[in-house]
Amino acid sequence: MTSDPTAAAPAAPAARSVRIIVTGGTFDKHYDAIKGELTFKDSHLPAILEQARVTLPVALEVNQLIDSLHMTDEHRQGVLAACRAAPEECIVVIHGTDTMAQTAQVVGSAALGKTIVFTGAMIPFSVQGSDALFNLGFAVGMTQALAADTYVAMNGRVFAWNKVRKNKQDGIFEAADAAA
Amino acid sequence: MTSDPTAAAPAAPAARSVRIIVTGGTFDKHYDAIKGELTFKDSHLPAILEQARVTLPVALEVNQLIDSLHMTDEHRQGVLAACRAAPEECIVVIHGTDTMAQTAQVVGSAALGKTIVFTGAMIPFSVQGSDALFNLGFAVGMTQALAADTYVAMNGRVFAWNKVRKNKQDGIFEAADAAA
Amino acid sequence: MTSDPTAAAPAAPAARSVRIIVTGGTFDKHYDAIKGELTFKDSHLPAILEQARVTLPVALEVNQLIDSLHMTDEHRQGVLAACRAAPEECIVVIHGTDTMAQTAQVVGSAALGKTIVFTGAMIPFSVQGSDALFNLGFAVGMTQALAADTYVAMNGRVFAWNKVRKNKQDGIFEAADAAA
Amino acid sequence: MTSDPTAAAPAAPAARSVRIIVTGGTFDKHYDAIKGELTFKDSHLPAILEQARVTLPVALEVNQLIDSLHMTDEHRQGVLAACRAAPEECIVVIHGTDTMAQTAQVVGSAALGKTIVFTGAMIPFSVQGSDALFNLGFAVGMTQALAADTYVAMNGRVFAWNKVRKNKQDGIFEAADAAA
Repeated sequence: MTSDPTAAAPAAPAARSVRIIVTGGTFDKHYDAIKGELTFKDSHLPAILEQARVTLPVALEVNQLIDSLHMTDEHRQGVLAACRAAPEECIVVIHGTDTMAQTAQVVGSAALGKTIVFTGAMIPFSVQGSDALFNLGFAVGMTQALAADTYVAMNGRVFAWNKVRKNKQDGIFEAADAAA
Repeated sequence: MTSDPTAAAPAAPAARSVRIIVTGGTFDKHYDAIKGELTFKDSHLPAILEQARVTLPVALEVNQLIDSLHMTDEHRQGVLAACRAAPEECIVVIHGTDTMAQTAQVVGSAALGKTIVFTGAMIPFSVQGSDALFNLGFAVGMTQALAADTYVAMNGRVFAWNKVRKNKQDGIFEAADAAA
Repeated sequence: MTSDPTAAAPAAPAARSVRIIVTGGTFDKHYDAIKGELTFKDSHLPAILEQARVTLPVALEVNQLIDSLHMTDEHRQGVLAACRAAPEECIVVIHGTDTMAQTAQVVGSAALGKTIVFTGAMIPFSVQGSDALFNLGFAVGMTQALAADTYVAMNGRVFAWNKVRKNKQDGIFEAADAAA
Repeated sequence: MTSDPTAAAPAAPAARSVRIIVTGGTFDKHYDAIKGELTFKDSHLPAILEQARVTLPVALEVNQLIDSLHMTDEHRQGVLAACRAAPEECIVVIHGTDTMAQTAQVVGSAALGKTIVFTGAMIPFSVQGSDALFNLGFAVGMTQALAADTYVAMNGRVFAWNKVRKNKQDGIFEAADAAA
């Protein structure tokens, strides 16, 4: 073991094109001062990617902007269709946390042969103390590094799509067999 | 290909203990209102990990709190020693960007057999528009997912320790052969 | 008038003790990550006064923590009672904007002989882009400077309690005769 | 005194046009990610006034953008000239705290017959925990409410221009006879 900087090192993964598919969720809510409530307007993702100083090629796609509690099977099929249509092999899906595991199950069981990482936030990006930026960075890393499959990435951890649930009482994700 | 949620999926990486070694850098600067300048006091990492809602086992170690422009060889040896002493196999080093590549080279060429990911920030966590949270999330993901080696993770990309430099004019990291 | 710094200048108003009466409103809402909604927990005022580096003697009183749309006559009488009981002559009332004018009318028509300034926020203190800090500073200034009476202070302007309404369409306060 | 909302109340001060004269100071510093330091670029005031939802007529004038420690007599004469030339009777001067009292003395001793309120910030607007918004709101209120003269408004208090100094050890303003 020498300190020779030209020594062979296993190559870092090549920078891979990433597609971010936005579906809304807590992550992307903003405060509407007139209505006096958290709702959706435009996605914060373009501003966030600039703030994160990302030089990776990123394609951004707003698939829908809704609360995941309002998602129907049709909405989930729309996410699956977007993942299937994407030319990229690395995909991050920004999703509400309440039904993230369900949509991940729909996408994961389709076995698209891509690395698809679901993430979201417990506190909106636009609110003090948000976990959105950390989670996005975590997911953008994981989608480049993990084998092709579908995952949920929250709380600094990554879970297989069929082994995860949201613990709604504690507001964290944990390993669990998928609901029958 | 079925939609059976019990179908075998490649396991997600098991949650692994991560050690975060703090060295200071732009990431951790705070504004001293009396002195009227950005300097170091306590690390923001404990508050950041809480904000990120991380449930992963994380050991936090403040190795030093300095501007990486002020780092000497002795400081870099201190980082290497901390990486060597760490019981964890997954390590994130928070480091100033200006000499991150040099310290990564010192650590990487020692070939410790651990996954060591250097990251930092171009704008302090405590300043509007910071990339710190994104970068930390990205690095915490990469350290769990990559093969044992030393890396620099910035701008949404990961670089091998001997193939990276900071482009100081543009403020971004890019692939490059290490300086001879 | 010379440039002699010892020349007599009209004295600035002496620092006066100020009481801040908190009633909740948008100003003080925080995001409950478990419930996924904006609600009330503790008031942000203690942290805000520290952030504002206020050296003025300030008494802080949490009268209630509710959305002003849910205020009843009884709640407004509670605000009036708190203003009456306060030993200070300078009072700031933090109040939801939707019925701020109504409560100001209840307090103003009681003619307590104190300078009582209502303010609030269109965007919570805890949300990006909030007007809360500006409005609080504005109100803390006005309560020290204005003659004894009751006022609404929003949008950088101050209105007499019986000459103001909220324009809910535009989300601003404007001069108007009080509703009959 | 009855609860009749049409009862005569002392009129609130009419909304008055305010001129904000920007000179830089800590208030307006931003972080230059390439240089790695706090410096000046554009003033944050246009964005701040929008955030504060100010409907008052405000004229904004960038007189200079420098650290007040670098101000010379010539710079202070420039501030005085701007105050003199302003058509408004209500002026807020955003100024570095270190020599705010000196410039206020130059302007105050000129006795322009206008209400001129100096303010600034101990922590930049662009940094977490800033007092800038509170101080600006406070000053915008005071300039409309106080008699014509020159004042320093910081820490929730207002001081006559010839009775104030910055206590640099504690980082607060306090009443004091002007230096001889």
